[in-house]
Order: sequence, then C-alpha cells, then structure tokens
Amino acid sequence: MSKPVLHTVLSPRLLDIYDCSNSIVVIIDVFRATSTIATALYNGAARVIPVDAVDKCIQIGKVTGGITAGERDGKVIEGLAYGNSPAEYPRNFIEGKTLVLTTTNGTKLLHMALQAGAAEVITGSFPNLSAVCDYLVAQGKPVVLGCSGWKDKFNLEDTMFAGAVISRVKNHFTIHCDSSLMAEEMYNKHKDDRLAFIRQLTHWHRLEKFGLEKDLEYCVTEDVANVLPLFKNGDLIAG
Amino acid sequence: MSKPVLHTVLSPRLLDIYDCSNSIVVIIDVFRATSTIATALYNGAARVIPVDAVDKCIQIGKVTGGITAGERDGKVIEGLAYGNSPAEYPRNFIEGKTLVLTTTNGTKLLHMALQAGAAEVITGSFPNLSAVCDYLVAQGKPVVLGCSGWKDKFNLEDTMFAGAVISRVKNHFTIHCDSSLMAEEMYNKHKDDRLAFIRQLTHWHRLEKFGLEKDLEYCVTEDVANVLPLFKNGDLIAG
Repeated sequence: MSKPVLHTVLSPRLLDIYDCSNSIVVIIDVFRATSTIATALYNGAARVIPVDAVDKCIQIGKVTGGITAGERDGKVIEGLAYGNSPAEYPRNFIEGKTLVLTTTNGTKLLHMALQAGAAEVITGSFPNLSAVCDYLVAQGKPVVLGCSGWKDKFNLEDTMFAGAVISRVKNHFTIHCDSSLMAEEMYNKHKDDRLAFIRQLTHWHRLEKFGLEKDLEYCVTEDVANVLPLFKNGDLIAG
Repeated sequence: MSKPVLHTVLSPRLLDIYDCSNSIVVIIDVFRATSTIATALYNGAARVIPVDAVDKCIQIGKVTGGITAGERDGKVIEGLAYGNSPAEYPRNFIEGKTLVLTTTNGTKLLHMALQAGAAEVITGSFPNLSAVCDYLVAQGKPVVLGCSGWKDKFNLEDTMFAGAVISRVKNHFTIHCDSSLMAEEMYNKHKDDRLAFIRQLTHWHRLEKFGLEKDLEYCVTEDVANVLPLFKNGDLIAG
C-alpha cells in the first residue's frame, strides 16, 4: 500500500499550488498564535475562536461571553482584553472559558486552507509537537504542513516546526518536496542550539524589543502543552 | 554609510512582497535556463533573447535569424531547433549568433522583475557565480536574489545558488531576511557534497530520466562560464 503524501508550504501565497482536498492541513504560526492556542486548550479552555479582524473579535466576544485577545506591536489591541502571549493563559484563568483570538498570519492561512477544501485543519507548534505527530500518523491521510510566515514572507521558526514534524513522521509518508527536505535539515541542524538560533531570526528582532524573549523561548519548547487543536465549526477544540 | 539591502525571494509568487525599484534583480534558474544562458554568452553568443512562449520563440527566431531553442519533458520542442542544455552551445557553434531561448520559470520571473520596476536585471547560476558576485559588490545597489523555482514551487538548487552569492558578498550588504539566512546555511552545508546532494532534489528526479545527469552536474559547477548576462532592451548580453 502506498503511503500518503506530505508537503510543506513555506508561505500562504504558495498554498494553492498544493492539493489540500482530502488532506489534513496543519496551520503553523510558532511566534505566537499556534503556541498560544495549544497552551490555552492544554490549560482547559473550552475553545479558541480564531478571527482575522479586531471588530469581529469584539463582536464574537460579546456574543459568546469569551475573552477577547490580540496584539499589535507588542501591545494589547485597543478594545480587546488580553494579548497574544501563551503566558497569559494559565489554567486558573482560562479553564472552561472561550478565547476569541485575533491573529493575522495564522488565521488567514487557516481560512485559506478551508477554502482550498482541506478535509481537516489542526494547529501546531513546538509546545504540542507530539500531539500533532501522533495524530498525523494515526489518521494516515495526506498532509500539508502550512507555514503562516509573516505577511506572506518565509520564516524559519514555522519552517523548523515543519521540519520537526517531518523528522518524526517521515517513515509514514511519501515525501518528495524540496521544502520538506530543507525544513527537516534546518530543524536537525538547529534543534540543539535553537535558543541561540532563534535570536538570529527576523521575527525575534521584531518582537524582542517588546520584552518577549521568554515567550519566544517557550514557543520553541517541545511538548509543554501537548494537546491537539482541531478546527470544528469555527472553533478550535482539544481533540 | 549604510550598506544596501539584499533579499532572497524563494518563489516568483513572493516577488511582489519585496521592493524591486532601484534594485538589481538576479534571475536564478539553475536547472538549466540561467546555466545555459551563461554558457552561450561565455562561448561568444552575440545575445540570448529569453521568451516565454514557443510561438514567440519561432517568430523572433525568424525575424532575427537566431537559433531557436527550448525543451519540454527532455525533448526539443516541435518547431524549435535546439534544446535547453548548456552542452549544446560550444563556442564553435554559438559564437556570434543570437540564441532565442524559451523557458518557463526563469523567463516568467524575469518579466515579473521588469514589471516590478527593477533597475537592472541580470541572470545567475553556478557557472557564472563569481561574475555575479563581483558585479553586485561593484554596483553597491540593493539586491534581490530571485529564485525561479519550478511552477512557483520552492526548489533547493536555486536557493543554494542564492546562498552561494550571499556567502561571498554578505559583508557588503545589509541582510535581515530568514530566506537569505536559510539559503546561506543550505549552501554551506552542501557545497562540498553538492554532486551527491542534488540527487535528492525533486528537479533531479524530474530530469534524470532524460539522461541529463552530466548537464545537472555542470549546472552546479562554479565559474566554468564566468560571464555576466545583463538584460538590455529585450536581450541578455555579456556585460
């Protein structure tokens, strides 16, 4: 029996080159949306509703009684209650609650994947690496690892997470894709010096001035919030 | 004085994210268009006219008296005279002649760069690596290293050429770009095992069945056709 295919998509701009139908699309936005999503669900959030615009976030927050959250330039967006840091969502705060999270890159890619006919959408980052890998292997469907990037630009933190997944699941999939080959090599090269390496990345330089070093280090730590965020009817829930 | 910026663009789809105005755009299509262009000009071709369609190639060939060339699936395209192999253009054949070359990925990116307002367009591949680097350093303008990819997909041979350029010129430019960081690391990792490494790439698998191994090995050999192809008024000429 042939193995299902796995592809890595390095930017939302490249998604439509790949066939997402019948596939599981993994939305990857390491700094920090999909790290925060995993953390909130791991700590007992009832659901996370990802939205792409601030006014929608406020409106859905009102309707659901959920916690509204989102940042621009390192600050909570005016009109929202919380930010986009995984550290803001410990169990004693988030358990049982709805989090309405506005993000740009990750949410955009998620909606693109749905429009492209993805059979399933899940989210992944280093904090829930094992849960993602276990699920992909168990399902045995074609996989698209979707890097959200930053304003459609390639970034290495998302790529390295794709590489981490590939390094663990590759025996279960057919992989003929230079993006995947590169992602796995970059992950293997830097998995042991990742805390130093992420300090070279453009996104680090964008965020470090806001005092987010600890946040970013957490976001590349494996399996500290090991839950599977599954997208169902507009919500991300723990699978 | 601040150094000019250098960016690497991993797919034609991502070109318009970057500001090409006032920049030198380097068109990179290692397998095999920009390797063939360097070789033909190095061997004395008067000019290479890159065109994106077969009928245009035939028409321009008639008007200019040039040699028409292009391949699909490893064979010379019907109606054209020669293929897309650098080995077809030795000095005793091509010297003083016009080559009208139809390619898909590289020519498309070249025209996109012109539309994006590039100040200058040159082409690069391993056979003319030094000529490209020397020119970029001498000009001191912003640089966009444009990987043609394959049907808009990321590929590693073009990326590695970008990395080769970066490894040589980086002290002369401001580079804050994860694409460039990755490209340089992939080049450094594989520069010494490149003949083995290219056998892992998707494009190799696409082309090897046509008996093109020697061609592809040539295309990753540095400075064997060390000329600078400059795009001027529709022609690529030796600069």
